[in-house]
Amino acid sequence: MVSVKQGIGYMDSGVGGLTVVKEALRQLPNEQVIFIGDTARNPYGPRPAAQVKTFTWQMTNFLLSKNVKMIVIACNTATAAALPEIQAALAIPVIGVIVAGSQAAIKATQNRNIGVIGTIGTIKSQAYPRAIHQQVPQVKVTGVACPKFVPLVESNEYKSAVAKKVVAESLNAFDNTGIDTLILGCTHYPLIRHLIQNRIGDQVTLIDSGAETVNQVSAILNFDQLTAPVRQPQHEFYTTGNPAMFQQIAGDWLELKNLDVRHVELADLIKNSEVKHAKK
Amino acid sequence: MVSVKQGIGYMDSGVGGLTVVKEALRQLPNEQVIFIGDTARNPYGPRPAAQVKTFTWQMTNFLLSKNVKMIVIACNTATAAALPEIQAALAIPVIGVIVAGSQAAIKATQNRNIGVIGTIGTIKSQAYPRAIHQQVPQVKVTGVACPKFVPLVESNEYKSAVAKKVVAESLNAFDNTGIDTLILGCTHYPLIRHLIQNRIGDQVTLIDSGAETVNQVSAILNFDQLTAPVRQPQHEFYTTGNPAMFQQIAGDWLELKNLDVRHVELADLIKNSEVKHAKK
Repeated sequence: MVSVKQGIGYMDSGVGGLTVVKEALRQLPNEQVIFIGDTARNPYGPRPAAQVKTFTWQMTNFLLSKNVKMIVIACNTATAAALPEIQAALAIPVIGVIVAGSQAAIKATQNRNIGVIGTIGTIKSQAYPRAIHQQVPQVKVTGVACPKFVPLVESNEYKSAVAKKVVAESLNAFDNTGIDTLILGCTHYPLIRHLIQNRIGDQVTLIDSGAETVNQVSAILNFDQLTAPVRQPQHEFYTTGNPAMFQQIAGDWLELKNLDVRHVELADLIKNSEVKHAKK
Repeated sequence: MVSVKQGIGYMDSGVGGLTVVKEALRQLPNEQVIFIGDTARNPYGPRPAAQVKTFTWQMTNFLLSKNVKMIVIACNTATAAALPEIQAALAIPVIGVIVAGSQAAIKATQNRNIGVIGTIGTIKSQAYPRAIHQQVPQVKVTGVACPKFVPLVESNEYKSAVAKKVVAESLNAFDNTGIDTLILGCTHYPLIRHLIQNRIGDQVTLIDSGAETVNQVSAILNFDQLTAPVRQPQHEFYTTGNPAMFQQIAGDWLELKNLDVRHVELADLIKNSEVKHAKK
């Protein structure tokens, strides 16, 4: 007997993907969330793309072992490094965060002058300018890597005075660029959204690529007739790091108590990656 | 030799679908638009669903004869009456406007109290409450038919003082409902958006279901790897009505001069519908 695929799998290098999950819980409350955050190996941003791809495959195989019906790579660095390969290999839909963020920015900009902030890996990959220019070649895109932001969030220091200073300095690069839209090209950044908005000014529209991704998830669910019936699903959260720290950040951010957070041994995640995945 | 499918087909009961096309031209400028408006038989709103379905199939077959790669039913009444059947029958993606509008409203509402305005056909079909409740059962949805709006737009009287009065009276039904979000559940309504916003108040977020549909078009194009290369496509507009009137409204709304607007004889549209469509 083939078991029915039910949950939607989300993955991130740490807690950042929870900003996508937050929108998914609000907009798609019947859909079960199965989340894995690779906190033990966070951050992904400064790592070589080949290594990020390997880690992303490991999380993909973990989620496939949970029998998910769709996978969301809720991490920009992993999307930039691995999305096309994983999308081509799997029979279930695989959705990244970069196309949705690019599309939303194209929709929002009035002066066709867009900024992108992300990890070193994401900015270096040029994935955002490529996705934007594929649709509208005339848009000016300025990318700035902000490698200090993810560690601030993962260490739960993102409400500190240090965070404010770090954010302010990192965004100096956008002075005099004239951007009217700024893509938060990392799913960790919505947690420091108010600091970013304060520094960049109210005239700039911030695009939360993760939140926009839920639109695409919904579109594909509907289009492939994969939507769940009305129900109250039990969500599952896994982390390769410390479950207590994850619980605290996730609880704060999702405003959910008693989250089911479980630890996954890194060794098991790596071993698990040898499982054969469903081919197209 | 099989010719390559290139354009995206859009259809409406008249000029309303141009509000979807406007967003498509802005967000997906490489994609060729092939539009048909059935102005001669407008409005569709008061017609029986079975008749609307027949008309929608006729426009579908017209667009298929233009070798489109995707069809957008840019008309709420037609989406409510015919989308599932046409989606099931065709091998190419077919996208309606109701799911996108519902999703955007769920995203926007803070108090889970949503209003919908549309034609008699759309409101009677309950398509919006069904789509919304399938995702979030707790949302309150109040639907109000506004049958006078489409004729105002099609007759190009939508800037008149009469229009203001008609809009104000039609929206009385929402007084004291406490809605914080209102779906413009007809692609004609964005042309009178400012009148609607003035009457309903700034505290209510208006959702343009047509504009939101472009997000879904983009998601499916990307997901199915159907995006066009960078180019400057020649768009084609067809109407069963008066091309000069269509030209005037379309030119104003799209801010495009010298649109290629051609007349289609109703008899040809009906005859054309006997062409076999591509089956799944």
